[in-house]
Amino acid sequence: MADKIKVALNGYGTIGKRVADAVMRQDDMTLVGIAKTKPDYEAYVAAKKGYAIYAVDPAKAESKFKAAGLSIAGSNEEMIKKADIIVDCAPEGIGEENKKLYEKLNKPAIFQGGEEHEVAGTSFNAAANYDQAIGKQFVRVVSCNTTGLCRLLYALDKAYGIKKVRATMMRRGGDPNDIKRGPINAIVPDPIHLPSHHGPDVNTVLPHIKIDTVAVKLPTTLMHMHYVNMNLNKTPSREDVIATLKQYPRIWLIPPWLNIKSTADVIEFGRELGRPRNDMMENVIWEESVSVDKEGELNLFQAIHQESDVIPENIDCIRAMTGIEKDGAKSMEKTNKTLGLGSFNPWKLSL
Amino acid sequence: MADKIKVALNGYGTIGKRVADAVMRQDDMTLVGIAKTKPDYEAYVAAKKGYAIYAVDPAKAESKFKAAGLSIAGSNEEMIKKADIIVDCAPEGIGEENKKLYEKLNKPAIFQGGEEHEVAGTSFNAAANYDQAIGKQFVRVVSCNTTGLCRLLYALDKAYGIKKVRATMMRRGGDPNDIKRGPINAIVPDPIHLPSHHGPDVNTVLPHIKIDTVAVKLPTTLMHMHYVNMNLNKTPSREDVIATLKQYPRIWLIPPWLNIKSTADVIEFGRELGRPRNDMMENVIWEESVSVDKEGELNLFQAIHQESDVIPENIDCIRAMTGIEKDGAKSMEKTNKTLGLGSFNPWKLSL
Repeated sequence: MADKIKVALNGYGTIGKRVADAVMRQDDMTLVGIAKTKPDYEAYVAAKKGYAIYAVDPAKAESKFKAAGLSIAGSNEEMIKKADIIVDCAPEGIGEENKKLYEKLNKPAIFQGGEEHEVAGTSFNAAANYDQAIGKQFVRVVSCNTTGLCRLLYALDKAYGIKKVRATMMRRGGDPNDIKRGPINAIVPDPIHLPSHHGPDVNTVLPHIKIDTVAVKLPTTLMHMHYVNMNLNKTPSREDVIATLKQYPRIWLIPPWLNIKSTADVIEFGRELGRPRNDMMENVIWEESVSVDKEGELNLFQAIHQESDVIPENIDCIRAMTGIEKDGAKSMEKTNKTLGLGSFNPWKLSL
Repeated sequence: MADKIKVALNGYGTIGKRVADAVMRQDDMTLVGIAKTKPDYEAYVAAKKGYAIYAVDPAKAESKFKAAGLSIAGSNEEMIKKADIIVDCAPEGIGEENKKLYEKLNKPAIFQGGEEHEVAGTSFNAAANYDQAIGKQFVRVVSCNTTGLCRLLYALDKAYGIKKVRATMMRRGGDPNDIKRGPINAIVPDPIHLPSHHGPDVNTVLPHIKIDTVAVKLPTTLMHMHYVNMNLNKTPSREDVIATLKQYPRIWLIPPWLNIKSTADVIEFGRELGRPRNDMMENVIWEESVSVDKEGELNLFQAIHQESDVIPENIDCIRAMTGIEKDGAKSMEKTNKTLGLGSFNPWKLSL
């Protein structure tokens, strides 16, 4: 086997900390380290896991970390120099700033969905366009909502051909530990001007799909919920659709007897299963909701875990960009296995 | 070593499923099984963990379980007959009904805080009154809020003597997956008539403590928050108090640098640490909040994880009632070790 790919995490929030853990589970990657500005509980656990912590300004940060009993391995730039590829998980818009550094040091980097498509030039979803990321210097893994849509639309377009999609994104207001975001008591049409940016964002990965999207923000932190309606070229039965979707390990269909009534039960199921951080990285589709109406329109509900669904896509994106695996199906299979995706399909689960 | 104590779980909700997992971690106990009425995701995971599932009416339930690919080991009553002790985790008020069955079969049973003190006659907190449970047939582990108060008050009363306590319980509205409870947009004084029942409930364990309590229900699911004020016989410095509380593994003091700003961060820390179900079984006290005013009154904030803080107390209660360990300190030490309590004190954590 070739040398392991050395991955650096620039940014260690909701996505960054999960990508770091996911990298640690791959036998073809190693983690150079993570970037933090100050000690906190996330830095503390990272240090206890043995992750090297780098800082933008180590001279300034060192005393704070030292007081907390933690140590700094060096500067952000030193971390980047040591890496074969950087996964940029900085807050929205900062990735574009960081790009200058990656260009200066001539390092490939993955950006997250908070950045514009143009920052990277290539947007990525593993099932839909793995090949397009091969050998690229900059690639953007699309956002949690767009990832959820791409997985579903790719599968259905391949099987039946999609004429037109209409999707309603019922979005969580903030992440579970984000106490500064809202709403806490309103339904916010966001954006009000229609359609929302999600449709065009899907088109950065699947350009030929006709899609209208709207989004509202809601007072919940657990997951997004999508209501998806579409016209297809062929009209399948609902059983056909269910059988098609069950072929994809990153899509999970909830059977009614599990009695999962809400996004809260989905997360509770993750807790029961002992999943790390209760993460549900798969699209979670209610089997009962899958329906085909008299005009042949397909309708369904899917829940999307905003904190974690892009994690396997980031791992696959590393393999594609570095070229260590040129076969997308093989990369996805490896990622699914190492991260346990699809393993909680009731008919497959092993604990 | 004597034979292992055979424990049956009658009820498998928020508390029951955690007690079952905790029993599995003890080398002096075995799990006979759990009781469920129908298959759902909790039953599914229980079955995958290898827990035997019993049903009140197996003939009626069997077809439902069979359709879900799960099997039933027998009736509730058969389960109880096989057990040395039953942990009753049935919904509030049902425990009192179940008591008739335990009496008929002459089996000892532990009730939860949702039952009245009189159902058991003895109420329990491991640190405060372990000895009183030794050899009893029926004991009640007090509720999550009362457990949190008892741990704190026992420690401070022992060190300084308590004159009077005033405690404000800011309660979560419902558990994370409980979509039928509220409030979702109000602050509910509950009860309105003061004081609340929590003070008298503390007195079922610590009868000599003078205490006034009030409670409000809030739109959150994660944890309860207590503001506790008290007059002490001796006036310690805040540093004294912190040093005293740090001696108890079931009490955790958050240092400021961890940057834990809310109950959401406490739970997020549990997720980061990889704790099962992100459970924080310890009283979580903000070190910064511990203060002694000019009149010598002590004030502090503590967060209480309603889903899990009573779990170690249930394990200790099994040991006390069955007499397999007559030394409370030894039982607590064993329970703390097997469940990892106190292990995330920043100065002690090993991952």
